[in-house]
Amino acid sequence: MRKDRVTYCLGILLPGGLVMASDSRSNAGVDQVGLVRKLSVFEQTGQRVVVLLSAGNLATTQAVVAALRQSAGSGTPGQDIHATRSLFDVAQIVGDQLRRVLARDASFVQPFGDPNGTFIVGGQIAGEAPRLFLVYSAGNFVEASDRSMFLQLGETKYGKPILDRALHVGSTLDEAAKLSLLSFDATMRSNLSVDAPIDLLRYGAESFNARNLASFQKDDPYWMTLRDHYAKGLAELVESIPAPPAWG
Amino acid sequence: MRKDRVTYCLGILLPGGLVMASDSRSNAGVDQVGLVRKLSVFEQTGQRVVVLLSAGNLATTQAVVAALRQSAGSGTPGQDIHATRSLFDVAQIVGDQLRRVLARDASFVQPFGDPNGTFIVGGQIAGEAPRLFLVYSAGNFVEASDRSMFLQLGETKYGKPILDRALHVGSTLDEAAKLSLLSFDATMRSNLSVDAPIDLLRYGAESFNARNLASFQKDDPYWMTLRDHYAKGLAELVESIPAPPAWG
Repeated sequence: MRKDRVTYCLGILLPGGLVMASDSRSNAGVDQVGLVRKLSVFEQTGQRVVVLLSAGNLATTQAVVAALRQSAGSGTPGQDIHATRSLFDVAQIVGDQLRRVLARDASFVQPFGDPNGTFIVGGQIAGEAPRLFLVYSAGNFVEASDRSMFLQLGETKYGKPILDRALHVGSTLDEAAKLSLLSFDATMRSNLSVDAPIDLLRYGAESFNARNLASFQKDDPYWMTLRDHYAKGLAELVESIPAPPAWG
Repeated sequence: MRKDRVTYCLGILLPGGLVMASDSRSNAGVDQVGLVRKLSVFEQTGQRVVVLLSAGNLATTQAVVAALRQSAGSGTPGQDIHATRSLFDVAQIVGDQLRRVLARDASFVQPFGDPNGTFIVGGQIAGEAPRLFLVYSAGNFVEASDRSMFLQLGETKYGKPILDRALHVGSTLDEAAKLSLLSFDATMRSNLSVDAPIDLLRYGAESFNARNLASFQKDDPYWMTLRDHYAKGLAELVESIPAPPAWG
């Protein structure tokens, strides 16, 4: 069994579009460590872009994505991502497929480890604004909104404070992309199981294409600039704050 | 049974001394939520200062601290914190007392919840430099060093990135105090069970007193200044970072 419990995935919903990002590390015990792609794109240029991020048991999430790919364009009711009218319907299809995979595999996998998987589903279908969902392993799901603008999977805590503090409804896609990389950087510093390359998509609302997708290696020049600039700026910022009064 | 699983405690070891901080929230299910002091000082002015921070089952950690108080100055070998030659010996006494409490209570508590508790032990005893230990529920312990300058208990993840990025061996006590408050602020934003007041001690090496101990309420004017200054500065910092290149 391949397992992948040490993931970090992040989806951000903004008026201007979406930022979707994931790390690439797969752990399956001590002897099977590799890199995988946890970001999957289903695209019909000009009509719809659907992006899945996945965490949890890698066999489970890969089975779900593979089945969704096979069904895309088939016209099979309730299974064809390309035939949905809304991203809500896509989230439902992902949840249903996840339930089918778990119904088939879970009891066999359980003696060896956790069979569960979770997904972030983001994208846009013509006629709707961009939307963003988190699909639980139970197959049900929640949707992001302007009050809850980002959704995370996996090792979520280290990378949350920077988003809580600096992301807001007025953030641009570029700002959200910067914050995403800082959020991943914070996570990777603290959890060595979350690792580069980071796949990062900036999706501009109404663009209906997934062209702005990049993979950042740890030594990517832009990411290194961002990291250094941030570290230096943060040290200066903390220094500029007045010292606490003495009480003694 | 009172439980207290939703704590954040932080100890920082610097050449110039120690910063020790804890929140005050105690949770015991839905109907017993209160404020407690998780920072305990054992002081012999001019000779020794020992500070304990505690997390975990509140009945367990309170029993440990109460027993240590009763034994302090008693001269009982292996139980008198005031009679130790080193902070290493203090950590051993804390671990031993924790084992005694768990030996007596754990089997009775287990049906209702987790009986375990953990401690951070920091301070200075004349003749030694300041030292800092983390005592596990098993009663064993690890020590901080210049390579591992801070130790945390409880809800540790949200508050770790700011320390990882900005704390360094050259940090002053005031800088470490600022970073501690920012670390608690990040934690409290993300985990509502960690709550003010924050008890924060700055201990200057060779001072052998615990006078510089303050409690910060959420609306403390200094803390509000710090928080606003940081939020504003962080937004400006992120804005000043160049945007990622476009790939599409």
